[in-house]
Amino acid sequence: MIRSTLAYDGTGFHGWARQRDPAIRTVEGEIVGVLAPVLGEVPRLSVAGRTDAGVHARGQVVSFATTSVLPPDGIQALLNGRLAPEVVVLQSRWVSDHFDARFSAVAREYHYMIQTASVPDPFTARFAWHHPRDLALRQMRAAASQLVGTHDFRSFCRNPGADRSTVRSLHRLAISRTGDRVTFRVRADSFLHQMVRSLVGTLVAVGNGKLPPDSMEAVLRARDRAAAGPLVPPHGLTLARVVYGTGRSTY
Amino acid sequence: MIRSTLAYDGTGFHGWARQRDPAIRTVEGEIVGVLAPVLGEVPRLSVAGRTDAGVHARGQVVSFATTSVLPPDGIQALLNGRLAPEVVVLQSRWVSDHFDARFSAVAREYHYMIQTASVPDPFTARFAWHHPRDLALRQMRAAASQLVGTHDFRSFCRNPGADRSTVRSLHRLAISRTGDRVTFRVRADSFLHQMVRSLVGTLVAVGNGKLPPDSMEAVLRARDRAAAGPLVPPHGLTLARVVYGTGRSTY
Repeated sequence: MIRSTLAYDGTGFHGWARQRDPAIRTVEGEIVGVLAPVLGEVPRLSVAGRTDAGVHARGQVVSFATTSVLPPDGIQALLNGRLAPEVVVLQSRWVSDHFDARFSAVAREYHYMIQTASVPDPFTARFAWHHPRDLALRQMRAAASQLVGTHDFRSFCRNPGADRSTVRSLHRLAISRTGDRVTFRVRADSFLHQMVRSLVGTLVAVGNGKLPPDSMEAVLRARDRAAAGPLVPPHGLTLARVVYGTGRSTY
Repeated sequence: MIRSTLAYDGTGFHGWARQRDPAIRTVEGEIVGVLAPVLGEVPRLSVAGRTDAGVHARGQVVSFATTSVLPPDGIQALLNGRLAPEVVVLQSRWVSDHFDARFSAVAREYHYMIQTASVPDPFTARFAWHHPRDLALRQMRAAASQLVGTHDFRSFCRNPGADRSTVRSLHRLAISRTGDRVTFRVRADSFLHQMVRSLVGTLVAVGNGKLPPDSMEAVLRARDRAAAGPLVPPHGLTLARVVYGTGRSTY
């Protein structure tokens, strides 16, 4: 099994997952398009985080089996030669066949960045949402503390399957400010569809005074997306790292 | 006179200066294109730093006279509404008619960023040159110290006019490293064409062991561009700030 750690600027992609229509540009589609002719087979990639359209990654992890003799550093050089700097392979190595980037992961951490100055910054505009308003950090942190833990996060999920569990363990939800940047660091065992953007959007509603800080338990209890705040846009979101059982981060 | 401070991502532009051919996209061309119909006149912009194609700015300064009654904050809102986040107006205000963004400036400071890790970083690729090699900082700093001061910088200039002085005062050339980033901070009264990129390219040649650190005086004396190192690419370069007689930086 080959395990690779990737970073990418998601701006130009329709998300991670390869689409049937080859005209829809995806990160997985680009990688498979480079690898398949060289490996002589279409690799089936397992991925830790299926990022949505416009979402970025610093420490994404993929794994795939191959019968090719091409070594991991050859695969890294091949992909970087064709896809950098938009998509880069930071590391690539042989791992046990028991490893699976998706199912072996014990936690994912996403970061969401908001720029709060009145004028947007051209240098971070691709990676931060410009929301030109002060956010009340103390209130947002009070609300965040009610969300940490194991809960049914159905209110923060788009299209939950009827038969699927929407219970997740949120390990950490830290909010920090540096200059005109507010960063949310959100870590969980795994995430529901659009869960990070929904959590951040709900906390922004708290930070804007539109939701009271002590309302999070009621939002969770509602099990209804209408109870949560509006989604924040995808381009402020980055998959920062994935944690595996060894306790070592892949960041 | 109106004075505005601008920031821009130069990636998509053929430099600052407006071209006759309107199909050639320039920062000045975009700004004039937005302002002219509203002001009812084509403003003549004076600019502190005529940045080349692909070069960015954080604290560029422009000034222009206008007979329009549109106030500076109206001009700021108009330009930001149309051009942000690629080009933004950070500040705009009335100043004395004696002020001229180009001729009143007493110093300009440019920053050049190099990323030295083996793999490029998708998050800074637009603003840093990826040069995957360790650079010998001590040697580069020794060379830089010989360049600071008032010298004839003809060896570091593209197409110097025969009748024009190529003497400039280099106030500062500081080199720092943070993680895999090496940043050059270069400040002078004014710069010759491509001078910063030529200075950085020459210092990179020193940092790579291709030029001895004590050779800078000989390079200056040669008054010949062939004596200097090769140009570094434009996308690592940013006009950071412009200093005016008050001693206040515009950054």
